[in-house]
Amino acid sequence: MFNRLFPMVLIAGLPLSVAGSLFHWPEALMFMIYCATIIALAAYMGRATENLSIVSGPRIGGLLNATFGNAVELIISIFALKAGFVSIVLASLTGAVLGNLLLVGGLAFLVGGFRFKRQRFDIHDARFNAVLLMFGVVVAFVFPEIFSMYLTDQEALTLSVWIAVILILLYFAALLFRLVTHRGMYQSGKEEEKHEETAEWSKRKSIMILALSTIAVAYISESLVHTFESVGETFGWSDVFIGVIIVAIVGNAAEHASAIIMAYKNRMDVAVEIAIGSTLQIAMFVTPLLVLISLFFPSPMPLVFTVPELVTMVLAVLLTNTIAIDGDTNWFEGAMMLGAYLIMGVGFYLL
Amino acid sequence: MFNRLFPMVLIAGLPLSVAGSLFHWPEALMFMIYCATIIALAAYMGRATENLSIVSGPRIGGLLNATFGNAVELIISIFALKAGFVSIVLASLTGAVLGNLLLVGGLAFLVGGFRFKRQRFDIHDARFNAVLLMFGVVVAFVFPEIFSMYLTDQEALTLSVWIAVILILLYFAALLFRLVTHRGMYQSGKEEEKHEETAEWSKRKSIMILALSTIAVAYISESLVHTFESVGETFGWSDVFIGVIIVAIVGNAAEHASAIIMAYKNRMDVAVEIAIGSTLQIAMFVTPLLVLISLFFPSPMPLVFTVPELVTMVLAVLLTNTIAIDGDTNWFEGAMMLGAYLIMGVGFYLL
Amino acid sequence: MFNRLFPMVLIAGLPLSVAGSLFHWPEALMFMIYCATIIALAAYMGRATENLSIVSGPRIGGLLNATFGNAVELIISIFALKAGFVSIVLASLTGAVLGNLLLVGGLAFLVGGFRFKRQRFDIHDARFNAVLLMFGVVVAFVFPEIFSMYLTDQEALTLSVWIAVILILLYFAALLFRLVTHRGMYQSGKEEEKHEETAEWSKRKSIMILALSTIAVAYISESLVHTFESVGETFGWSDVFIGVIIVAIVGNAAEHASAIIMAYKNRMDVAVEIAIGSTLQIAMFVTPLLVLISLFFPSPMPLVFTVPELVTMVLAVLLTNTIAIDGDTNWFEGAMMLGAYLIMGVGFYLL
Repeated sequence: MFNRLFPMVLIAGLPLSVAGSLFHWPEALMFMIYCATIIALAAYMGRATENLSIVSGPRIGGLLNATFGNAVELIISIFALKAGFVSIVLASLTGAVLGNLLLVGGLAFLVGGFRFKRQRFDIHDARFNAVLLMFGVVVAFVFPEIFSMYLTDQEALTLSVWIAVILILLYFAALLFRLVTHRGMYQSGKEEEKHEETAEWSKRKSIMILALSTIAVAYISESLVHTFESVGETFGWSDVFIGVIIVAIVGNAAEHASAIIMAYKNRMDVAVEIAIGSTLQIAMFVTPLLVLISLFFPSPMPLVFTVPELVTMVLAVLLTNTIAIDGDTNWFEGAMMLGAYLIMGVGFYLL
Repeated sequence: MFNRLFPMVLIAGLPLSVAGSLFHWPEALMFMIYCATIIALAAYMGRATENLSIVSGPRIGGLLNATFGNAVELIISIFALKAGFVSIVLASLTGAVLGNLLLVGGLAFLVGGFRFKRQRFDIHDARFNAVLLMFGVVVAFVFPEIFSMYLTDQEALTLSVWIAVILILLYFAALLFRLVTHRGMYQSGKEEEKHEETAEWSKRKSIMILALSTIAVAYISESLVHTFESVGETFGWSDVFIGVIIVAIVGNAAEHASAIIMAYKNRMDVAVEIAIGSTLQIAMFVTPLLVLISLFFPSPMPLVFTVPELVTMVLAVLLTNTIAIDGDTNWFEGAMMLGAYLIMGVGFYLL
Repeated sequence: MFNRLFPMVLIAGLPLSVAGSLFHWPEALMFMIYCATIIALAAYMGRATENLSIVSGPRIGGLLNATFGNAVELIISIFALKAGFVSIVLASLTGAVLGNLLLVGGLAFLVGGFRFKRQRFDIHDARFNAVLLMFGVVVAFVFPEIFSMYLTDQEALTLSVWIAVILILLYFAALLFRLVTHRGMYQSGKEEEKHEETAEWSKRKSIMILALSTIAVAYISESLVHTFESVGETFGWSDVFIGVIIVAIVGNAAEHASAIIMAYKNRMDVAVEIAIGSTLQIAMFVTPLLVLISLFFPSPMPLVFTVPELVTMVLAVLLTNTIAIDGDTNWFEGAMMLGAYLIMGVGFYLL
């Protein structure tokens, strides 16, 4: 798929994006072109990051993946914040959490479970992820929500900044723990496997592609953000629905595909790492970073989601933790996660 | 107990029920006669279903049990819905969840724990049940509650219907998983045990008894429902208390007895299956079915409990999951569950 | 530290406390003198209780520890309740729960984790503690909070008294379970270790010191409570911040030190027992006892925390349970708990 589809989308999408914005094509059309082009660019960025990781060794590689894995999400959000769409950004972060946990995770468990009766992944990873989700989503997001009800806007922002800094510090502490101090401590025999991977692109080529794709994504994201309003009107979608469902799916399309492929190949550790690792990156790195970046824009973003967004994320984490804590998956667990995602999609559509 | 008490109750209760409604005896008296008769009929229905299960083999049997296990609860609720008592039905569903989890589960753990220091049940069942409770009660009930605060009544009903359909589909998917695709996968040596059971009644007799009891329960339930108001006045009970505590205990009396007997015989797998399995049936089958059925009545029932009902159910699930997840029980865990049930009973009485 | 610092603090603190209250020294100064003296007295009380435990054998010893372990907290709270500071008492109980779980627990895990890559404690204890925390904090505190919104003040107090009685009964039932019916059932080889401990003080001396320290703590606590208001004004601290952070740290300083020393010595079972055991004692014994005692004072204390207090405690329990349930700790888990404590401290400071 990668070698055929994405180059074509890119060759068509880039000029169309430029042409469309110059000649003021209909915004609903442009919205679709932008989305398709970003998905293709995201695939290139993901591939470049992966190549760089292989070349740089596992420690730097892990750090690169953990930092640039959600670069597209981050770039779109920065432009949306700059344009003042604070509530759409919060909605799209919610959507990224829900999408990665329930849609990507659920599809991976379901597709993998159709082929294999029972799939396993490392139980120590499962527990570590459960703890991080409980901290990064439940504690760090519920706490400011409740306290902000009793605080002034300025105080709520101060609290948000403290939490943002603590989240980022703990995110890198978690990387330090996994990649340095406790590297390989809880695992056995997984290292060899990874050394076999060979880089497809050279370091130089990877960096070039990463840089160019990033610039292109940034350019298109800025245009994309400005189509939100008229697209909402055209399709009858609310801001929240665009953020939670549409932007989240576009921003994470590439990861969705690879997680499912990995599950199909019975490499459940990798599939779970993509689904839950990506969620953690959104919650503990992208979101707090956006809170800090937003301080430089006219309308800063406190770490205060709407109640439906927050409750949905908490429910998604509680369900995922209960399902994934035993390191054992099957098709029914996948079906349940997709059922929960569908319920939540309907809810946000009606909102 | 079965062979002596229930036939007598039935022989007295059925004619008294008819006579009382014809001659307009005091409603508080009729309420007690109806309750006793329904408990006796429920015992017959339970026995007939069990017999049919043995005759039909484990797959069909499991399906029968999972579908007719809470038939009484369902029938009473349908008549209550028809009479417009939406809030009593929601309260009695809450009561069934609380009663099965905390009262039946707690009594089984306590009584079993007095005889055996430590009782165990299958840990895979424990985890599977924990996941289903998290989905069927926490996710599926909390989500519409929160979203309904931001939706119109019509939209809340639409969301409820979607959730109801997804719940029923997942309930049957769980049966498919347990009885077909992953049958016996996680267990060992339990099959033989079951093959020894012999049916007490023939297939024909079981169906006859099931049919006749169902008709009788339906007839009495309709009368029972109409005594609620005056009974509430007589005893000073609120609607919610009648629903949560009284109707729930009447509707599940037979199951309560068998779970405790099983725990006393150290067959903890069966006791847990009755307590938690019955809860799941209420949450994932009876409740959503009632939502769908209520669409044909003048006042439809959205999947929106009151806040106290919802919070109590969520607390009951969180406590039960924390207690039961290790597949190991003792008297103290039972005492804690009964303590929680007592607290909740006092709360609903005061409400 | 014990042999040098605490006697000196005591020799200076006791006369200064008396002199200061006679000559009306500035209240902020007296506040600090009182706090230091109470910390030193608490250390003596802790030591006396420990000695009595060793002398009296494990059962009576466990009971003594479980009853007098938070005597200082209890005494300060009684005087605060008598003076009508109901909200400060609730805040300080919240602070004790948060401080013991997240600050003491987090520091123990972090300090221990710097020395040892991986520390373990008994998994059965971990599960038992998780269940008790879920019951004693989440169920027993959330339930009256929600129901009190729908009840009159008198009904909320009735519900609180019921819950208080059930909590205390279950607290002693848990002791019965641990010390009598299931003593040593889940452990192996830990008993011998304990028999080696020798008492430092005689039984008589321990009782004397315990009695004298208790009287001194009571005397100083009464004075301390009356400095709260002016101290709040001087430092710009709210009542809640004084209760949650300051009083809680003062009341538990001695335990904090010993938990961290135990973790450093790799005796993680003891460290966890101090952190979580102390939390449970606050939640299931001190708090309900204060509810009952408050009935004799002009302003009784219902079991109804403020929403921020309650949510913070629930989050702390959910995080701790997720971290501690596997009986395996490391520096990162400690860092995460301290991160959560810091976030919560900032929140209460801003409130």
